[in-house]
Amino acid sequence: MGPHPAVAAIRLAVRRVLHDVLTLAPPASVPQAAGDRPLVLAACSGGADSMALASALAFEAPRLGIRAGGVTVDHGLQEGSDLRAAEVVSRLAAFDLDPVEAVKVSVGREGGPEAAARDARYAALDAVAERHGAAAILLGHTRDDQAETVLLGLARGSGIRSLSGMAVASGVGGRYRRPFLELDRQTARKACMVQSLPVWDDPHNADPAYTRSRVRHEALPVLEKALGKGVVEALARTAQLSRDDADALDSWAAAVEPSVRDDSGALEVAKLFALPPAVRRRVLRRAAIAAGSPAGSLFARHLEEVDRLITSWRGQGAINLPGRVAVRRQGGRLVLRQG
Amino acid sequence: MGPHPAVAAIRLAVRRVLHDVLTLAPPASVPQAAGDRPLVLAACSGGADSMALASALAFEAPRLGIRAGGVTVDHGLQEGSDLRAAEVVSRLAAFDLDPVEAVKVSVGREGGPEAAARDARYAALDAVAERHGAAAILLGHTRDDQAETVLLGLARGSGIRSLSGMAVASGVGGRYRRPFLELDRQTARKACMVQSLPVWDDPHNADPAYTRSRVRHEALPVLEKALGKGVVEALARTAQLSRDDADALDSWAAAVEPSVRDDSGALEVAKLFALPPAVRRRVLRRAAIAAGSPAGSLFARHLEEVDRLITSWRGQGAINLPGRVAVRRQGGRLVLRQG
Repeated sequence: MGPHPAVAAIRLAVRRVLHDVLTLAPPASVPQAAGDRPLVLAACSGGADSMALASALAFEAPRLGIRAGGVTVDHGLQEGSDLRAAEVVSRLAAFDLDPVEAVKVSVGREGGPEAAARDARYAALDAVAERHGAAAILLGHTRDDQAETVLLGLARGSGIRSLSGMAVASGVGGRYRRPFLELDRQTARKACMVQSLPVWDDPHNADPAYTRSRVRHEALPVLEKALGKGVVEALARTAQLSRDDADALDSWAAAVEPSVRDDSGALEVAKLFALPPAVRRRVLRRAAIAAGSPAGSLFARHLEEVDRLITSWRGQGAINLPGRVAVRRQGGRLVLRQG
Repeated sequence: MGPHPAVAAIRLAVRRVLHDVLTLAPPASVPQAAGDRPLVLAACSGGADSMALASALAFEAPRLGIRAGGVTVDHGLQEGSDLRAAEVVSRLAAFDLDPVEAVKVSVGREGGPEAAARDARYAALDAVAERHGAAAILLGHTRDDQAETVLLGLARGSGIRSLSGMAVASGVGGRYRRPFLELDRQTARKACMVQSLPVWDDPHNADPAYTRSRVRHEALPVLEKALGKGVVEALARTAQLSRDDADALDSWAAAVEPSVRDDSGALEVAKLFALPPAVRRRVLRRAAIAAGSPAGSLFARHLEEVDRLITSWRGQGAINLPGRVAVRRQGGRLVLRQG
């Protein structure tokens, strides 16, 4: 008798990613672990998604000649978080994962509590991956997380890149892998249940002070009621399609950018004007970043204003962008300068 | 003393579009009205948005030497709809609009009740425009309608074209214009109130049997609560950005398509493979439509399956697309044929 369908599903998802890790040559930037067998780590919070992930990694990795380890991050944000981290470590060790460790991080404040926690977490995971020479770190994000991420991106209204959610592979050399991105959360929970794995529900996940929690517990259920049961799947599909679209348009802008600059590096208005608006805005974005504007602070409305120097020219003054970058139209040229 | 800010806002929005209509040469496909002055019609349901629209058109058009008329569509779906249409006609006439008329349509069933009503409405408006030689028909869709349309498109999960909402100008020669697409519904209502215009609330708009009504009254308020007050604006901005992106990618696919076909018209797999996935899928879509597959029935999942003939070739059989179009990989070629 085979495993329960939910367990089969999580294992298949992990197996596919492990195959992929085996066939891809390790990127030069990732130092290799001692010995021949690559090391793959599961990042685990103790919640259902990542416990299911760790259990599937522990099952599949040995069959493919891969070493499997686990890591949990202690954000130090809740009373007793160190004890909880220790408990997760013992559960991971019970899967025969090796190495297994907890890393403690200190969460700053930049970009809000959720972004700060995320930044600290990835920095810690990066360090762990480097230290152990891991070929990959698996993350337990599910299709439901993806749908939430798309909605959060939609709320920014800054275009299709923010609708593209999380990538199947991200980070240095595609180090972070998300095997469950097409799997629903319910399957991960079920897989834990039928394997009798104890799981921990992070109270933050249900705390309405967090935007993601409100999206999960309030917005998505109502959207499903209004639009039908397929909403999560539709949002996840939107993410994939948007990502491909954004990649293609970025490559177009990168290819065309040199041809719209004159010898001094200034942007020629007539050539910009001839581009499709979607490509022009991306060229302007690239130019702003090259001039010193931080990508994270550069919004659609900034680029719209710069675009009007081209499409609605009536002698406007300089447009000020984040990072003290000023954009001026001088004759038939746009000049970007950091002041 | 100038008009109330809400009235000023609706008038400015309409004035901008009228300027646009004046400066654009009429497309050859639109027969011109007798006399020199172009005719612009307001489509009016009697609701707040379109009553505000009609009032603004009546005010602005004479100042620009434009003739202004009004039209209301009787869908015949509710008891007494003919009486209501007659009432709307008398209100439009009270604005000194001329011509003013009600057209009765019969709504079919194709594509569901909302789509069928929409199709019947636009067919009737097209006929009215042709009959009077109107240069444009103004529609009262607001930014809130746009946000709802984006959410409805999101639920389809079929990519950024379905996120691009309604266009500022659409139809034959850009005949349909939406002056209020960046204006919120509240402003239109306010403008009616301060002008003491009676408005009619279509009970369909609040009927939870309609998807759009559920989006308006259930989904959007909860999204705003979860994500913040700027959601409607963000969705409307997403529409504009997505539309530009989709246009650019469509133009890329159109430009590259001839170069990936061989002399017999078959698609060369190696050349398709070299394209960015977003462009490749659009080339495949174009090829499917050219082979006879109806655009409206061709979904993202169909194209994904065809794409796998290129990216995950393991001897699959023919892929069947809507409209009895079969796609086969034969050697290094994709052959599309209607059976």
